[in-house]
Amino acid sequence: MKLLIINGPNMNLVGKREQEIYGAKSFTTYLKKLRSHYPDIHIEYYQSNIEGEIIDALHKAGFLYDGIILNAGGYTHTSIAIADAVRAIKAPVVEVHISNIFARESFRHTSLIAPVVKGSIIGLGMESYRLAVESFKTMIG
Amino acid sequence: MKLLIINGPNMNLVGKREQEIYGAKSFTTYLKKLRSHYPDIHIEYYQSNIEGEIIDALHKAGFLYDGIILNAGGYTHTSIAIADAVRAIKAPVVEVHISNIFARESFRHTSLIAPVVKGSIIGLGMESYRLAVESFKTMIG
Amino acid sequence: MKLLIINGPNMNLVGKREQEIYGAKSFTTYLKKLRSHYPDIHIEYYQSNIEGEIIDALHKAGFLYDGIILNAGGYTHTSIAIADAVRAIKAPVVEVHISNIFARESFRHTSLIAPVVKGSIIGLGMESYRLAVESFKTMIG
Amino acid sequence: MKLLIINGPNMNLVGKREQEIYGAKSFTTYLKKLRSHYPDIHIEYYQSNIEGEIIDALHKAGFLYDGIILNAGGYTHTSIAIADAVRAIKAPVVEVHISNIFARESFRHTSLIAPVVKGSIIGLGMESYRLAVESFKTMIG
Amino acid sequence: MKLLIINGPNMNLVGKREQEIYGAKSFTTYLKKLRSHYPDIHIEYYQSNIEGEIIDALHKAGFLYDGIILNAGGYTHTSIAIADAVRAIKAPVVEVHISNIFARESFRHTSLIAPVVKGSIIGLGMESYRLAVESFKTMIG
Amino acid sequence: MKLLIINGPNMNLVGKREQEIYGAKSFTTYLKKLRSHYPDIHIEYYQSNIEGEIIDALHKAGFLYDGIILNAGGYTHTSIAIADAVRAIKAPVVEVHISNIFARESFRHTSLIAPVVKGSIIGLGMESYRLAVESFKTMIG
Amino acid sequence: MKLLIINGPNMNLVGKREQEIYGAKSFTTYLKKLRSHYPDIHIEYYQSNIEGEIIDALHKAGFLYDGIILNAGGYTHTSIAIADAVRAIKAPVVEVHISNIFARESFRHTSLIAPVVKGSIIGLGMESYRLAVESFKTMIG
Amino acid sequence: MKLLIINGPNMNLVGKREQEIYGAKSFTTYLKKLRSHYPDIHIEYYQSNIEGEIIDALHKAGFLYDGIILNAGGYTHTSIAIADAVRAIKAPVVEVHISNIFARESFRHTSLIAPVVKGSIIGLGMESYRLAVESFKTMIG
Amino acid sequence: MKLLIINGPNMNLVGKREQEIYGAKSFTTYLKKLRSHYPDIHIEYYQSNIEGEIIDALHKAGFLYDGIILNAGGYTHTSIAIADAVRAIKAPVVEVHISNIFARESFRHTSLIAPVVKGSIIGLGMESYRLAVESFKTMIG
Amino acid sequence: MKLLIINGPNMNLVGKREQEIYGAKSFTTYLKKLRSHYPDIHIEYYQSNIEGEIIDALHKAGFLYDGIILNAGGYTHTSIAIADAVRAIKAPVVEVHISNIFARESFRHTSLIAPVVKGSIIGLGMESYRLAVESFKTMIG
Amino acid sequence: MKLLIINGPNMNLVGKREQEIYGAKSFTTYLKKLRSHYPDIHIEYYQSNIEGEIIDALHKAGFLYDGIILNAGGYTHTSIAIADAVRAIKAPVVEVHISNIFARESFRHTSLIAPVVKGSIIGLGMESYRLAVESFKTMIG
Amino acid sequence: MKLLIINGPNMNLVGKREQEIYGAKSFTTYLKKLRSHYPDIHIEYYQSNIEGEIIDALHKAGFLYDGIILNAGGYTHTSIAIADAVRAIKAPVVEVHISNIFARESFRHTSLIAPVVKGSIIGLGMESYRLAVESFKTMIG
Repeated sequence: MKLLIINGPNMNLVGKREQEIYGAKSFTTYLKKLRSHYPDIHIEYYQSNIEGEIIDALHKAGFLYDGIILNAGGYTHTSIAIADAVRAIKAPVVEVHISNIFARESFRHTSLIAPVVKGSIIGLGMESYRLAVESFKTMIG
Repeated sequence: MKLLIINGPNMNLVGKREQEIYGAKSFTTYLKKLRSHYPDIHIEYYQSNIEGEIIDALHKAGFLYDGIILNAGGYTHTSIAIADAVRAIKAPVVEVHISNIFARESFRHTSLIAPVVKGSIIGLGMESYRLAVESFKTMIG
Repeated sequence: MKLLIINGPNMNLVGKREQEIYGAKSFTTYLKKLRSHYPDIHIEYYQSNIEGEIIDALHKAGFLYDGIILNAGGYTHTSIAIADAVRAIKAPVVEVHISNIFARESFRHTSLIAPVVKGSIIGLGMESYRLAVESFKTMIG
Repeated sequence: MKLLIINGPNMNLVGKREQEIYGAKSFTTYLKKLRSHYPDIHIEYYQSNIEGEIIDALHKAGFLYDGIILNAGGYTHTSIAIADAVRAIKAPVVEVHISNIFARESFRHTSLIAPVVKGSIIGLGMESYRLAVESFKTMIG
Repeated sequence: MKLLIINGPNMNLVGKREQEIYGAKSFTTYLKKLRSHYPDIHIEYYQSNIEGEIIDALHKAGFLYDGIILNAGGYTHTSIAIADAVRAIKAPVVEVHISNIFARESFRHTSLIAPVVKGSIIGLGMESYRLAVESFKTMIG
Repeated sequence: MKLLIINGPNMNLVGKREQEIYGAKSFTTYLKKLRSHYPDIHIEYYQSNIEGEIIDALHKAGFLYDGIILNAGGYTHTSIAIADAVRAIKAPVVEVHISNIFARESFRHTSLIAPVVKGSIIGLGMESYRLAVESFKTMIG
Repeated sequence: MKLLIINGPNMNLVGKREQEIYGAKSFTTYLKKLRSHYPDIHIEYYQSNIEGEIIDALHKAGFLYDGIILNAGGYTHTSIAIADAVRAIKAPVVEVHISNIFARESFRHTSLIAPVVKGSIIGLGMESYRLAVESFKTMIG
Repeated sequence: MKLLIINGPNMNLVGKREQEIYGAKSFTTYLKKLRSHYPDIHIEYYQSNIEGEIIDALHKAGFLYDGIILNAGGYTHTSIAIADAVRAIKAPVVEVHISNIFARESFRHTSLIAPVVKGSIIGLGMESYRLAVESFKTMIG
Repeated sequence: MKLLIINGPNMNLVGKREQEIYGAKSFTTYLKKLRSHYPDIHIEYYQSNIEGEIIDALHKAGFLYDGIILNAGGYTHTSIAIADAVRAIKAPVVEVHISNIFARESFRHTSLIAPVVKGSIIGLGMESYRLAVESFKTMIG
Repeated sequence: MKLLIINGPNMNLVGKREQEIYGAKSFTTYLKKLRSHYPDIHIEYYQSNIEGEIIDALHKAGFLYDGIILNAGGYTHTSIAIADAVRAIKAPVVEVHISNIFARESFRHTSLIAPVVKGSIIGLGMESYRLAVESFKTMIG
Repeated sequence: MKLLIINGPNMNLVGKREQEIYGAKSFTTYLKKLRSHYPDIHIEYYQSNIEGEIIDALHKAGFLYDGIILNAGGYTHTSIAIADAVRAIKAPVVEVHISNIFARESFRHTSLIAPVVKGSIIGLGMESYRLAVESFKTMIG
Repeated sequence: MKLLIINGPNMNLVGKREQEIYGAKSFTTYLKKLRSHYPDIHIEYYQSNIEGEIIDALHKAGFLYDGIILNAGGYTHTSIAIADAVRAIKAPVVEVHISNIFARESFRHTSLIAPVVKGSIIGLGMESYRLAVESFKTMIG
């Protein structure tokens, strides 16, 4: 299985930025552990602060990968274009958020991406990514 | 570890009810598989169609269990009282939805419970429950 | 033909309560006349002030009866859970209101139940129930 | 008893128009059956696509007939002027809709006419007209 | 000076209709007195319940009369088309309402016509028409 | 007959202020002409920029005068307290505006005072005051 | 004098729950003191987490008691059915809130019950109940 | 090919009315040129200020013509009834506006007709009609 | 103990003004009885119709008195400046309303002052002031 | 004549993406036919998924080309910055949409770009581009 | 150069009031330093808690001073009358706020005064006043 | 001291674009004068039309510079992602706008960036940048 994790704007500063919200660990540190936890799964990683580059990445991966894990950061709440890209591709996308976006400012309560993804995993810290990987594994039933 | 799954109104009809949304499997069938998948975790189950009985259940379990998995069904979008109960107890609560509530009628897009839970797992079918159990297991990092 | 009439909160006080709106006759008095008017139709009656018990009643009757006549009282405007129950069952449901809810406070102008029922009969006093029974009889054409 | 049925815009195309919503029978076919079903009731019929002509008809019938059955079609949701006409006349008016307007586009969920009529019968197909006629007959109690 | 009074829907029933709001005098009775009060002013009168006929009347009078007094009745709050007609013609238009529309239902609080007229006279009963005539007479200063 | 004209904030600058909206004539110049036009009517005048002083003036005049002509200026759109004062007194109040408030910024489209006055005269320039005086004279009919 | 205090959902956890909002004292401890403070007043107490049971309690007490003190907790903001029950009974109801609901989340700023009660006492801690009892005693004047 | 152009209210005044918006040319002048530009296409023309007559015209042409070009003028933003007529007929309808309705008052930004037409051509002056005719010609691909 | 009662606009007319809402007793009559009821409490009284003078009074008393009882009348719903003054001072403030503001016009349903006071006592008539005094006395527990 | 077509995000996937909405033909296939249909017009083409690159393209072409045809895709509904770029340049811009955006999700009903373009052509499939080219050709009149 | 600083309600308590927002320094202390920093500029100062007195001050200074620096405090968000005064006078006005009003309660996010001033300086503490003085000095270019 | 000025979309066209709003001088011309006015301050300059590149620039400068002056142009009103970047970095940011955004289209009245910056300077033309530089200099007091 081949998965791509796409992180959106400001996710490159996680670990450094607002630690009371996002924690003190950088995403690349977490990614290493995640990969060793799932040795059989090929986990690619891409980060960009540019909305259109995230769309480019979705287009490329969307016909090659088995699944995409997307944390669109601030674009979650404003980008119809990213949501359209998710809708345009074949690979199922699972949306992930480190913090509980519903417990923060009201403009974070609406995700334009949520209606078009397979599912959403929200507020469970870095572990949200692990659970997203789990969601692509063979189901119980 | 001791977890309680609480299912809200109309969840007793899953498997029978609107199968194109909720699937053809009953929850109790799924629950059996879930328990055998996690033999080391004690998983209790409670279902009620009565808002106040769900509150009672949260009060009782909220000081005895290690975690609660809550699918409040239709009350998700209308019950300040259940959200208050979640806030009032000690046990962490993870919110779960079988269907992608953000892809359905607009009155399902707002969860009054989401802001007070530890995290939310939405739209991943019955497997949402398994991921919720996973979220209570020892973290990677 | 077997019909169930379900009355919601405060309907037990009709005849006693705000007579300028609901009239001076109790529902049970009316029910007697209704049954003798339709001797060939079996008309059951259930009343509860508890939202979840109304859901329970819908679940039970919803696979046994030929039709349900539902006056959900104040829950009409707030209960997604009852509307979900109506959607989940097989028996057709006709919504009934004694008073003209559109001529009263603005919070009574929206029925969450209306979009999922077969039809609505509103504002025609107690006779709304008789018309609801009529609506289940063989059609003209 | 003398009743007038007034049908508003596009009701002349029923039977031909959007059959999955309005059915395949024309209103005049139904009307014939309705009249033979109620031989003792004089049932007049008027249809116009012009808002002001509907007002004219209400003015004329409103002081001569025992009751008016009004399906204002698309004007239901936009015409304060028709609602004012209903309020200005003596004859009681019962509002009728063939389709369940609450299960359709959101602009159909508000009836400006509903607050000023005696009652509303909605979503029960052509039979909504028969029930409206019934609503003018001597009451049970 | 040549003025045209245009009355909209249901104004033909004034005197007969909701007397606690509009009074017990018909408009034609009032019109007679108004004309004798202003013998030097030619006062034409037109009434229609049809929105488009009011537009036609505005088009015809709008290039021939010195002023138009318009009570668009229920169309006041819904007719962009009448407002466009007022904007399209040369003659100044003064808007008139018998009742205080701001003290009635909220849908009567907005006049689509008000922004395009010379001025509005509201709530002063039948005398609103006399004041409108006055407003076309030579100014004090 | 004894009338009081009350002008609210910034009305003291009329003639000097935004002449394209309010004209180049001061109110006191107009007032002189108005008084000589109605020699039999005693017309008092009061102006204040202070909301509470306008309330004081309404209280004092409200039990002594035959009528009050009120242009509350900017307070028209924000002062519940002035509207309450109008409601609390005996003398009828007619609301006046020089400019067409409905053709200006949207925050000027709502008058909190309008629902509690006898009537409103809007947008007819300084002559709005003369028409307001007229509205207190013996009616035609 | 015979009063009933009705506490709604989660009020059974007061003293244990969010102490920075509700304080560290349980309601039953406070109730004992309240009763000994008013030895001449019979003060009954009822608590339920179930909306419909609160309605049942209002129905029973509403024709037997001299007054009801109601803290509907989270149902305050969502229950039309409880407000209807208050409207349906004879005994006057005083609404009470321990915390200042207007200083908390915006969904707590609207009480559906407030418009139908005799009065509201809000934000004065447990003492709000004592003041509610006081409000039923003989008035000063 | 047989096309019908339907123009709504106030379109008869184009050329005369608000020339800075609609230009100085009358529609009939333009129509002549349009017809000679497309000698092989039969282009009928109908104008009415009456909403219901536009509906009548749509009904008649809607089963006889190959296409309809509709500029509903002010009714564009208020007429559910015209939109229903468009939905009820067979002929494809293309919506046309001379001015850029999105650059004008906010009440012109919503077209109730747009969701039910084949397409919309907006703001390109009289030429909008020519482009609408073009849209009915054989496609490139 | 030293308390100041501050009454806002139009409260000077209580007893004279809208007696069906505010009763027939003047506030000064009530005040006399209130003082004799609480001989040990020094109760000052201040009334002004001017928003800024109420702010001045709050500033002066806010560092000298043990508590302030504030009925800001119509300013309750519009004055951020008075709310800021309450927030700026040391003395606790209790908000009082004679009538049930939640049962009146919708613009009275929001109090800008409520979020910054210690508590609110609403709708209990003149006795609301006595209860406010009570709220400053030594608590039960 | 020199025109530039700018396509926004996800337009590179047309033909591959949601074919029931956008059709099965790629834009480049259509472009070839379009160019051969208009041999005398120089038609450049640019596509980017990056909002700012679309702005760059508008800046460059906006002072060199005779016209720009812009389909901003998902940015249509969210990009004030692109609208500002259109406003900042000299070349007239015509907005184009393949699908009928008014018949889709409500967030697609508002175009931020529409108010600043010369005109809009919406919902006529790929042919919308041809009509846009037509709109730049010499006018009939 | 002659400037007037006008401070609105509660600004007299700065230094004493909510120090975490407004700091511990009084405005008069700051004013002294400001004057000595700009010895060549005559800086007058006026403070009032009364809305109408601020209007009076604007009227007086508005035709005599070279510029006005206005911090309208709580009236910023509610006073159309002050905004009208700013619009009515000749002197340019610069709006100043000590705290970042956009980072506080939502009712502070809208300034009715901002649209009519020359510019706004917000959130830079007391130094906002110095920058406002700077803004009146000869420009760089 | 080391400052970075970041200009957002379309700011590269200032001087050329809508001169009645932004003036006829280019930003680079102004920048030269600004630098020579503050010889002791190192002022870097960066402009991009790409949202994500502005985020990149904030990330880079945010840990190296003493302050950032940000004019995000059209992204001011739509970019949560830029606001998040401002929140994520160490350097204080001052927001600047050349034009008075509050006096323009309503979509420009909300700045998503304003709540997270140190302060805002709005509407003072190019000089807004000089005042922003001033705001970073040693304070008066």
